[in-house]
Amino acid sequence: MTEPTRFARDRFDEADDHYMGLALELADAGLYTARPNPRVGCVLVRDGAIVGRGCHLRAGEAHAEVNALRQAGDLATGATAYISLEPCSHHGRTPPCADALITAGVSRVVVAMADPNPRVAGGGLARLAQNGIAVAVGLREAQARALNAGFISRMERRRPWLRLKLAASLDGRTAMASGESKWITGAAARADVHDWRARSCAVMTGIGTALADDPALTVRDHPQADNLPSQPARVLLDTRLRLSPTARLLAQPGRAVVYTISDDGPRVATLRDAGAEVRVVASAGGRVDPLAVLEDLAAQEINEVLVECGPVLAGYLLQHGLVDELLLYQAMHLLGDDARPLAHLPGLEHMSERLSLRLLELRQVGDDVFFRLAPKGE
Amino acid sequence: MTEPTRFARDRFDEADDHYMGLALELADAGLYTARPNPRVGCVLVRDGAIVGRGCHLRAGEAHAEVNALRQAGDLATGATAYISLEPCSHHGRTPPCADALITAGVSRVVVAMADPNPRVAGGGLARLAQNGIAVAVGLREAQARALNAGFISRMERRRPWLRLKLAASLDGRTAMASGESKWITGAAARADVHDWRARSCAVMTGIGTALADDPALTVRDHPQADNLPSQPARVLLDTRLRLSPTARLLAQPGRAVVYTISDDGPRVATLRDAGAEVRVVASAGGRVDPLAVLEDLAAQEINEVLVECGPVLAGYLLQHGLVDELLLYQAMHLLGDDARPLAHLPGLEHMSERLSLRLLELRQVGDDVFFRLAPKGE
Repeated sequence: MTEPTRFARDRFDEADDHYMGLALELADAGLYTARPNPRVGCVLVRDGAIVGRGCHLRAGEAHAEVNALRQAGDLATGATAYISLEPCSHHGRTPPCADALITAGVSRVVVAMADPNPRVAGGGLARLAQNGIAVAVGLREAQARALNAGFISRMERRRPWLRLKLAASLDGRTAMASGESKWITGAAARADVHDWRARSCAVMTGIGTALADDPALTVRDHPQADNLPSQPARVLLDTRLRLSPTARLLAQPGRAVVYTISDDGPRVATLRDAGAEVRVVASAGGRVDPLAVLEDLAAQEINEVLVECGPVLAGYLLQHGLVDELLLYQAMHLLGDDARPLAHLPGLEHMSERLSLRLLELRQVGDDVFFRLAPKGE
Repeated sequence: MTEPTRFARDRFDEADDHYMGLALELADAGLYTARPNPRVGCVLVRDGAIVGRGCHLRAGEAHAEVNALRQAGDLATGATAYISLEPCSHHGRTPPCADALITAGVSRVVVAMADPNPRVAGGGLARLAQNGIAVAVGLREAQARALNAGFISRMERRRPWLRLKLAASLDGRTAMASGESKWITGAAARADVHDWRARSCAVMTGIGTALADDPALTVRDHPQADNLPSQPARVLLDTRLRLSPTARLLAQPGRAVVYTISDDGPRVATLRDAGAEVRVVASAGGRVDPLAVLEDLAAQEINEVLVECGPVLAGYLLQHGLVDELLLYQAMHLLGDDARPLAHLPGLEHMSERLSLRLLELRQVGDDVFFRLAPKGE
């Protein structure tokens, strides 16, 4: 993990910045499809002209560098490669990209960030440098990290990047006292949520929501719906295995993973027969430990998790520092003080204990307002 | 009230629109100071050149038309007058402006809107037309109406324009369970509230807030604070006269008006000695009737009222259709479900009964987000 520090942060000129911007745009083409791999783009430039462009679209298919080199052919010799992530130096699903760049004769490689994967970790850059290639690292790094927040989180923290999505009225209510909640937000906001689902490896909820709303948790009515490598895994936290075997989330294409602390053999068998993968994890205070679930999901190559849940699980995740981004859709109406709350935050008694957030994005979505926020100061 | 219909809505050209825009900008100069009069601006144009500009700054001082005519002198002869409101034809605090325009020899008068004051109501336009002046009405009328929403409401509905200001966390909470609420929002949002106070004739609250927070309800730290005709009247709804005679809102410059249904002579005397005007009004369900208060305030030439209150009064005003605009400052933090609610809305059980709002304005104010909203479909 210390290798990348051998490559000083260079000064980059405007052309470098421009081409790295293009490489990041190319990387974005894999937003919905590259998982569990990172989204990567590559631009090859020789004598001020772009001679190759590539991106990584699907795991098992060619990496961005290889696609760009193929397009460039002989013109790759002496070119500069702009890559949004350090090229790999290990044999994974495909041969190492560092070797391909060396073989093609590129003279300079600029990367936005070193690979956070400990199996790569500067090894690709070192290999290039050892072969006489000029190497520079750190151009548009923040943008590159944001693009692959999930992959990086899995590599660096051994857990996925967690986005908590909530929908509420202006007075912070998610449902009437009766539980009636269709619909708090409008069609445009609901479509936006499907976009967040589509880029995620998993969509997670709690048993309360599963029993109350019986959600399918699939990507629907989305331009990429038929192009996804699979539906995101549907992940349920179900301490006592209360899920019905006829629940909609079990009847959809793709994985349905039920986490429990229960050892109730017959119920496990019933849910398995209904299509669930049942996984037993550690308990935290008598309930499924969400952190244990996240760690288990990371081990299954889950990068980004979208959580859509009720106030108890939402509050737990927020209070335990497990939320990386809060996505809040706020509808322009009032439901009143009898209606259900946004987040259960037990023990919060003083203003000084409040959960502070930093606003990253604010925009109107149809008739609703969308906030993207990050917890402050952890 | 039917007179203005005699003046057909003309077609206006780009120059007309431009000059009326200037007249409205001039009118805006009286935003904080013209009360209880409307804010009015006037531009005089002759041969394509502006020869006079005027606005109305303070009640008792010259009207916009007179100020513009003074500046134009002899050049007013044959000019077009663009005025954001129909000129008055009655003797009020000053002589009628219609007469001044006739005397000065202007040849055409364009007004954004007819005067909603029944004492004027097209009379000014009729007088001008009878004296051979071309008259046109309705240019930028929506903008002109918005500028004087309070004055117009008082004239047309016999009650002030009511803005309800609330400050809450992202989860719709206004204070901790203990009542601790300093500060939900940041300094920039609080300064913004003082700007809304400064343009208002009155700032209103309920006894719950008065007892809990002991607010002064004055305009402070505002560029116009020393230039106001007076501090806005502080208006308290205090059904049982529970206010302490040492309350801060009684000790400030300007009027402090306490509305009650109590006939407790000694308490009335105590509060009067402490500087309050005590006014007895009708009760609604055993409490001071807010509509009766608003009607009484209109009779006292109160145009715009800013209400800063707790969930009970806020909910009452919202459920009874008395809120014209909701000003919501939302802080980017979560206080949890034990914290106090934004609005008490009893009897609201189904989504179909929710209070729907229309978003008029959305902007960041410091670290907070500001919503300006109007109730939908009454």
